[in-house]
Amino acid sequence: MTQPLRLGIAGLGTVGIGVVKIIRRQAALLEARTGRTVTISAVSARDSSKDRGVSLTDYAWETDPVALAKRDDVDVFVELMGGHEGAAKEATEAALATGKDVVTANKALLAIHGQALAEQAEAAGRVIRFEAAVAGGIPVIKSLTEGLAGNDITRVMGVMNGTCNYILTQMEATGQGYNALFEECGRLGYLEANPNLDVGGIDAGHKLAILSSIAFGTKPAFNNVHLEGIQRITLEDIRAAADMGYRIKLLGVAQRTGRGLEQRMTPCLVPAQSPLGQLEGGTNMVVIEGDAVEQVVLRGPGAGEGPTASAVLGDICDLARGLRIATFGQAATTLQEAPAAQTALPAPFYLRMALKDKPGALAKVAAVLGEAGISIDRMRQYGHSEPSAPVLIVTHKTSRAAIDQALAELQATDVVTVEPVALRIENV
Amino acid sequence: MTQPLRLGIAGLGTVGIGVVKIIRRQAALLEARTGRTVTISAVSARDSSKDRGVSLTDYAWETDPVALAKRDDVDVFVELMGGHEGAAKEATEAALATGKDVVTANKALLAIHGQALAEQAEAAGRVIRFEAAVAGGIPVIKSLTEGLAGNDITRVMGVMNGTCNYILTQMEATGQGYNALFEECGRLGYLEANPNLDVGGIDAGHKLAILSSIAFGTKPAFNNVHLEGIQRITLEDIRAAADMGYRIKLLGVAQRTGRGLEQRMTPCLVPAQSPLGQLEGGTNMVVIEGDAVEQVVLRGPGAGEGPTASAVLGDICDLARGLRIATFGQAATTLQEAPAAQTALPAPFYLRMALKDKPGALAKVAAVLGEAGISIDRMRQYGHSEPSAPVLIVTHKTSRAAIDQALAELQATDVVTVEPVALRIENV
Repeated sequence: MTQPLRLGIAGLGTVGIGVVKIIRRQAALLEARTGRTVTISAVSARDSSKDRGVSLTDYAWETDPVALAKRDDVDVFVELMGGHEGAAKEATEAALATGKDVVTANKALLAIHGQALAEQAEAAGRVIRFEAAVAGGIPVIKSLTEGLAGNDITRVMGVMNGTCNYILTQMEATGQGYNALFEECGRLGYLEANPNLDVGGIDAGHKLAILSSIAFGTKPAFNNVHLEGIQRITLEDIRAAADMGYRIKLLGVAQRTGRGLEQRMTPCLVPAQSPLGQLEGGTNMVVIEGDAVEQVVLRGPGAGEGPTASAVLGDICDLARGLRIATFGQAATTLQEAPAAQTALPAPFYLRMALKDKPGALAKVAAVLGEAGISIDRMRQYGHSEPSAPVLIVTHKTSRAAIDQALAELQATDVVTVEPVALRIENV
Repeated sequence: MTQPLRLGIAGLGTVGIGVVKIIRRQAALLEARTGRTVTISAVSARDSSKDRGVSLTDYAWETDPVALAKRDDVDVFVELMGGHEGAAKEATEAALATGKDVVTANKALLAIHGQALAEQAEAAGRVIRFEAAVAGGIPVIKSLTEGLAGNDITRVMGVMNGTCNYILTQMEATGQGYNALFEECGRLGYLEANPNLDVGGIDAGHKLAILSSIAFGTKPAFNNVHLEGIQRITLEDIRAAADMGYRIKLLGVAQRTGRGLEQRMTPCLVPAQSPLGQLEGGTNMVVIEGDAVEQVVLRGPGAGEGPTASAVLGDICDLARGLRIATFGQAATTLQEAPAAQTALPAPFYLRMALKDKPGALAKVAAVLGEAGISIDRMRQYGHSEPSAPVLIVTHKTSRAAIDQALAELQATDVVTVEPVALRIENV
């Protein structure tokens, strides 16, 4: 174990440069901890002339990441380009094919092609590590895969998109609407090039698919993640939820239902006083529940140069120390197909609607809910100046199907003035 | 790797039985994840006739844990007896001497004899794992040692004694005093046989010494942990702290000062709205800060059969998977001596005193503080019926030495009616 561990780093954006900086700055610390020197043989990025604020002259330059991945002087291919097709995928496959281990921060690649890559890695006797792909600096992959390996995992939840959580918490804090904050996030550089990856829940959905696979021993199945974005959340919902003791989060939940694996990334109400409810701004949080450990909550920065590079370095140190583990925590060939749950487990729901201000309106709503088998836990009608009356309802546990049926019937009545909103309340 | 991993378990209390139950219940899961069967060869406890609610007839029985540790059919010695002298230490040494790896939940053993045991393990090519020794079910040892290995750790903090946190949060919630809640904890079985281990901060101090060693690459040095218990915290302090926006926690803090390693386990004020401030009841929380990751917060159950057994199983799964790492994260022979910091880093302090209700009293206090170089951030004097006036002061950052000097001088004046209280405010 006295040979240096030699890296090839593809992608020199924020995270890649963060990794280079740590390896230069903390050489002695890394060697003390791992017993080996960690060196960079070569790097690769689109533009070799750009000043990235750190000297790269010690490293060979490759314009083609596939060529980088195949180099003889690279032991570990560090993939920090992103994207689930094209260069990232080809270079990862090339690295495994030529006997390299892979460290990546690429959630989309693993959520979509993770099974095939894990099988390729295992056939080649190589490993793929990806701590940085989920929840930034939080060591959640390691905690779930290794630290909690003695548990039958019962539920995994997470707030894993900092931009969405920033928008939702700023709506409550500043009274600005969704659109204004979405534009602010664009100006601040908080949004992906395709902002739907953030606000549509896709990015966080990729992360949930990865966690689900490890938690439940199933093949990663991003296509089975039910996605809803935060675009339809209004200031009224934020305020009404707060008034009932809740906060709205873009929350990922994965759990077995007995009839398939439920995976969803949707806006949910959580108790304002719970750790998830108290999570402000761009911070991420993952909640893991197991039959033995009960509940563990992990919180930390979900993005940024330092935190993401910290996660990449955790994987690199593992490899330098000789710690090697199957991609999703067990042999890829033993991962099960996970049929998507046709229906999510029952839950309480929050309903917001506006009723015509006339006698019998509320009675009609109550009747429709009752016919759908939905019982009411709490209800509030607010004083109002407009001709329609804002009404909030928190139901007892019911199914999404019953809620959808009730909403359709409510819209067919003459008492509801705008489309009602229904959000799941997650018991955390 | 197709040979079973064979355990010898010494100690069949709550945790030991929890481990046996998981190994029996989750055999298939453990094999899927580790690629090996995990079996129990032999067990050991004082009383072989006691009904422990789980069948032990499949396992050989040893009355002497040292004999158990030496058995040829044991690969991993699982030490769950506790205590830093006697059988636990002798059996651990015997296990290492006869080529076994060790998994233990014994914080006292590691905090006091960790260096010698780590050196013995490394000389023998064996490992000692101890996730269950710190913060119960939270995978904090793994997160710090492996997940955050790329960080220069700047500070580690933790609320790691559930009994103390239960007492402190119940004082605020119920208005009961310390003594009543201490007695309640005794009735509920929340206290160690020697309750000073809990309320005196010793148990949590052991845990802090272990975390410090890993974080800073130093030899574990429990004797250098500055300990203060919670016995002197009054309901008045709890209420006054809350009124100023703080909560009182038995908080462990470890950080480098430039003049030695600061390690303390003392009652501190933390902002009520911080994750540490919001921590209720018996739950544990560890906060890890590093130069790259910024801040990671880990929260979970600090004790109990399931959570602690979960941590033990995490270590067992590591060994079954062939994941082997130096005891405190780097070779024991490379750990540095950590001279104790002579003075803690400066901090704001909370002062509570009662002043004689006469002209000039407050002016005298202000003068004494000013002479000690202490400047006042906030002050409150409360309305009162007694002859003395309750006064709370939050200072700007200052040293403990300056505070102690000021307290001594205040007591020498004729305006302070009872011994003033000073508690550090930790900026979290």
